[in-house]
Amino acid sequence: MATSTYEMNRERVIAVAAELFARNGYHGTGIAELGKAAGLGRGALYHYIESKEALLYAISKEQVDRMNTFAERAMSAGLEPEELLRTLARGLLRNIADHRAQWAVFFRDYGALTGERRDKVITARERYEGYWRQALDRGVQAGVLRPTPRLLVKGILGMLNYTYLWFDPGGELTPEQVADDFLDALMRGVRAG
Amino acid sequence: MATSTYEMNRERVIAVAAELFARNGYHGTGIAELGKAAGLGRGALYHYIESKEALLYAISKEQVDRMNTFAERAMSAGLEPEELLRTLARGLLRNIADHRAQWAVFFRDYGALTGERRDKVITARERYEGYWRQALDRGVQAGVLRPTPRLLVKGILGMLNYTYLWFDPGGELTPEQVADDFLDALMRGVRAG
Repeated sequence: MATSTYEMNRERVIAVAAELFARNGYHGTGIAELGKAAGLGRGALYHYIESKEALLYAISKEQVDRMNTFAERAMSAGLEPEELLRTLARGLLRNIADHRAQWAVFFRDYGALTGERRDKVITARERYEGYWRQALDRGVQAGVLRPTPRLLVKGILGMLNYTYLWFDPGGELTPEQVADDFLDALMRGVRAG
Repeated sequence: MATSTYEMNRERVIAVAAELFARNGYHGTGIAELGKAAGLGRGALYHYIESKEALLYAISKEQVDRMNTFAERAMSAGLEPEELLRTLARGLLRNIADHRAQWAVFFRDYGALTGERRDKVITARERYEGYWRQALDRGVQAGVLRPTPRLLVKGILGMLNYTYLWFDPGGELTPEQVADDFLDALMRGVRAG
């Protein structure tokens, strides 16, 4: 079997699992149901994935890895600090909008991961948070941002991440516009004058 | 049986369910498991709750109702707009910190509610969002806040709600301090000067 066919089938199994987990919960989805939805028998299914937890891991890790790759590139693109923050925000909201099922599964159920898988996902998330913190620090060093509490990064990410719950892909605003609105509020503050 | 005993037992069943749902997911928790954890047989359990979904509803609705009661009181307390926003933020983060299991269940699993229960929880959430929007509008009318996109309310709530995932009750900061830090950033903005 060609690697590409194997990879394609594996990707399909992961995508089907993300939809099912998002709809019925990780704990509420059985392996038999997964196989049925993917059109694969139990044996064939286990050819592509090791276990249900391996699927949860693949779903969770993939999006965080993408965001880390994106952030790493943005960090070294020579952007001004505000532009860098805007780029990070836009990239995250675009990714969430395009992979809402995966992000729903990640936010709801990554706590069900165990052992090494859990550690790896937590490390990857912390790495992502680290990029945001570095971006804010760069702004402070450049004198364009004021120093803010370290915890603010979690607030900013909350603001952005939470879109997985309410962003409407058919709505009036693109994810980039939502990111810009949020970044503007955060940069300028909501106080008048 | 005295109403108070009945109520106490019902409250206990709801609290046990919140812990189990938070740990193993709503879909991953069975009625038998619930009964065991609450020390009640199936019959006794159904004396206090109608169904597993009724438990999810009770857990979700209770905290949102509390926040609505709190917000309603704050709205009519004659506070200056900024103080009102700060009061709302502090009230929410205190409640989340004190009921992390319930909020985890709510954010992760309220989507599993159906029919009238689902409608009621969504209506209650929208009502809560409405208080925040009114509070921002008051600030704009009073000339102390600048007009901001309507969607910002969802950003602010994301910032605050997301604490259910990371707030550490044994950490250095109280929920009120986190609320103040976030509100300061939002009021003043993070731009220097």
